[in-house]
Amino acid sequence: MMANLPAMVSLKHFLVLSLALNVSLILRMVYEGDHYQQGSNNNNNKMEGYNRIIGKSRLAISSITSFANSTRKDRSGIMDKVINLDHGDPTMYEQFWRQMGDKTTIIIPGWQSMSYFSDPTSICWFLEPEFAKEVVRLHNVVGNAVTQGRHIVVGTGSSQLILAALYALSSHDSDKPISVVSAVPYYSSYPSMTDYQKSGLYKWGGDAESFDKDEPYIELVTSPNNPDGYIRKSIVNRNQGLLVHDLAYYWPQYTPISSATDYDLTLFTVSKSTGHAGMRIGWALVKDREVAKKMTKFIELNTIGVSKDSQLRAAKVLKTVSDCEEEKSENGVESFFKYSYRMMEQRWKLLREAVDSGDLFSLPKFSSAFCTFLNQESETQPAFAWLKCEGDIEDCESFLRGHKILTRGGKQFGASSKYVRISMLDTNDNFMHLIDRLSTIQTKQQQ
Amino acid sequence: MMANLPAMVSLKHFLVLSLALNVSLILRMVYEGDHYQQGSNNNNNKMEGYNRIIGKSRLAISSITSFANSTRKDRSGIMDKVINLDHGDPTMYEQFWRQMGDKTTIIIPGWQSMSYFSDPTSICWFLEPEFAKEVVRLHNVVGNAVTQGRHIVVGTGSSQLILAALYALSSHDSDKPISVVSAVPYYSSYPSMTDYQKSGLYKWGGDAESFDKDEPYIELVTSPNNPDGYIRKSIVNRNQGLLVHDLAYYWPQYTPISSATDYDLTLFTVSKSTGHAGMRIGWALVKDREVAKKMTKFIELNTIGVSKDSQLRAAKVLKTVSDCEEEKSENGVESFFKYSYRMMEQRWKLLREAVDSGDLFSLPKFSSAFCTFLNQESETQPAFAWLKCEGDIEDCESFLRGHKILTRGGKQFGASSKYVRISMLDTNDNFMHLIDRLSTIQTKQQQ
Repeated sequence: MMANLPAMVSLKHFLVLSLALNVSLILRMVYEGDHYQQGSNNNNNKMEGYNRIIGKSRLAISSITSFANSTRKDRSGIMDKVINLDHGDPTMYEQFWRQMGDKTTIIIPGWQSMSYFSDPTSICWFLEPEFAKEVVRLHNVVGNAVTQGRHIVVGTGSSQLILAALYALSSHDSDKPISVVSAVPYYSSYPSMTDYQKSGLYKWGGDAESFDKDEPYIELVTSPNNPDGYIRKSIVNRNQGLLVHDLAYYWPQYTPISSATDYDLTLFTVSKSTGHAGMRIGWALVKDREVAKKMTKFIELNTIGVSKDSQLRAAKVLKTVSDCEEEKSENGVESFFKYSYRMMEQRWKLLREAVDSGDLFSLPKFSSAFCTFLNQESETQPAFAWLKCEGDIEDCESFLRGHKILTRGGKQFGASSKYVRISMLDTNDNFMHLIDRLSTIQTKQQQ
Repeated sequence: MMANLPAMVSLKHFLVLSLALNVSLILRMVYEGDHYQQGSNNNNNKMEGYNRIIGKSRLAISSITSFANSTRKDRSGIMDKVINLDHGDPTMYEQFWRQMGDKTTIIIPGWQSMSYFSDPTSICWFLEPEFAKEVVRLHNVVGNAVTQGRHIVVGTGSSQLILAALYALSSHDSDKPISVVSAVPYYSSYPSMTDYQKSGLYKWGGDAESFDKDEPYIELVTSPNNPDGYIRKSIVNRNQGLLVHDLAYYWPQYTPISSATDYDLTLFTVSKSTGHAGMRIGWALVKDREVAKKMTKFIELNTIGVSKDSQLRAAKVLKTVSDCEEEKSENGVESFFKYSYRMMEQRWKLLREAVDSGDLFSLPKFSSAFCTFLNQESETQPAFAWLKCEGDIEDCESFLRGHKILTRGGKQFGASSKYVRISMLDTNDNFMHLIDRLSTIQTKQQQ
């Protein structure tokens, strides 16, 4: 440890230079963005959209700049800090909502929402009508899902809705549980969520690629995929297949919106769309009335409904997002998705630079595509980085833990331990520490 | 139907007289209460406590009076209204919280509580520290549970905590599920909550009275009991028994608080204590650290935590209740429990009068006992009436449904169909309609 000290010092100088370079590049982009914006009055919509994205992102950038400045002044102990990016905690978005001031502030008097019931006439009797209305509106604004002819079921996060879907889709008369499968790499919680109750209704069946039983099954299709960010379709593709589409990340900041999805059972959550994970609010769009009824029954038996306070708060947040997109709110209010798109773009740029500065790590490659929401070509910039350790590093999670970066190892996703999943949605500070640390590891390796 | 019309008319007159009598009795009690109160400065605490209860209940009483007046004026169609008292929806309490104005109003800005985490250092990492603090304080104020040496686990209502407890107490290595039992009449949802997932960990084992297997079991002890209101102790009482004490109704408005309970695993909920069912917030007091960890794990896999918005709101409500009891708030603010006690006292008095006016129905009998919280003898006045149909009415639920009163039949509680459970916590209007309807049914029978 002590023997590495001189190398570490020169390395820190190198990193300061590297960060300064990044910051100057970003500032140049902002300058050009402003420049284009001033001259873009007669340009087409596509260019206008892009410029708005660039022009509106000063806040995020100034924060990254101030981080770079602070690291110049005080870098002692910075390599000792544990960077925990194991969970996908969406704290990145807090800054945006602070900036919005009281636009999404909610006031709930003590006597409000005391009853178990929200709408006794609805299939989902605990669904707040105001929340349902804003869900439909947001999907219409973003264009990522068909809501017509769908029943909305609200859940305590989309986790509860996954369980509700398994309950609703499985046969309650069958003497053996239905297999639940998902293609590797799959969301790390799917196996334990499916099996923790040792249910006789459903059972984890592993990788969808290798599922070859001639019997009914439920396939969980996560698109964009957690952990790797790729767009997915169902792959088992047999007669008796029941599909659950987990579209938590099908929002413009993460992936180009190619079309409005039109599946039988689709799940979304505010945790990943607007970043309000603490609300624990998700929703399902369900085509079949009986399936919606069974999902509702599950939530009734599981938690007798879903927090009304959080539904009302979620309604207000979704309303603000839609208002901004429809430019119904006052001037100068920023588009949430365009702000977030730009944040993710910056972060992925910095991450790719850090990864490309050596040959220890690699990242998935994505091609850009036309986004119907942004009305331009847009990038895939997932909420997680699916990082691969190259060469002879077999256990990437342990390797990074040795450098005090906590990630989730590939084996938890049914994949190789050469991979880890890293959250891209953490605070600016934690993210910049990650960039710093990854660059340091690679530079150290090269010396 | 038409043939009964003259009888119905005279009946209505009778009922108006009966209601007027009740109202005059109540008003006389209020008058005497005020009278005692004025002269009670030198009396002992017990008398003072009682007088405060009486003196503070004008709001509830005036509401019942205005109902009685309104029924005098417009009674047309009143016998056609469907009175739904199947669920224990605690809407009765709304009036109190309206009266409290903005004392329990909560303001949540859009950027608050975005993270999944509340306190990463706590066993229950999604528990809001402010909520935990107010839970401990309220138990200390009311004296209904020991909190020292307990871990608090928050749940999406106490339903989720019952499931979490079953998960935590069952053996995950055993090849057969543990039996879950409760004495008849038991809470109607216990069998379906236990069995709906067809879990291999636990299985509904029916009436605790008849459980005679020499093997581990979990006994659910509900005290005061839902549906019948009696105080309960565990009854299987063997070596291998694991106990869950569901104390949702162990609050001063429902039953005398005899001592601070000191069990291994105890459940409470805001739905029944303060009436905020729509929040979906419950809590467990857990002695064993490993059990608390497993319950937390269950909630993590089930819903990745519990709504922070509702936890913060619940904290504010519980704080207001404790503040009022400790007379820390401004003058003139009413004690929630004393108000509620008086409301329940009135309702039970009216219900017993209606039931005693004929011989079709009967109710459980309770003896009064000393309440350490009210510091006086107090009554058992359960949140549900466990009504029995006497004589040759075998199916009490169908009988009442024929009179447009919706209740929950005894069979759902493992008991005889001669019984029904009726919510005592509904709105004043619905409750008064019930009293009216029950009296009408009995008078009609006598003619």
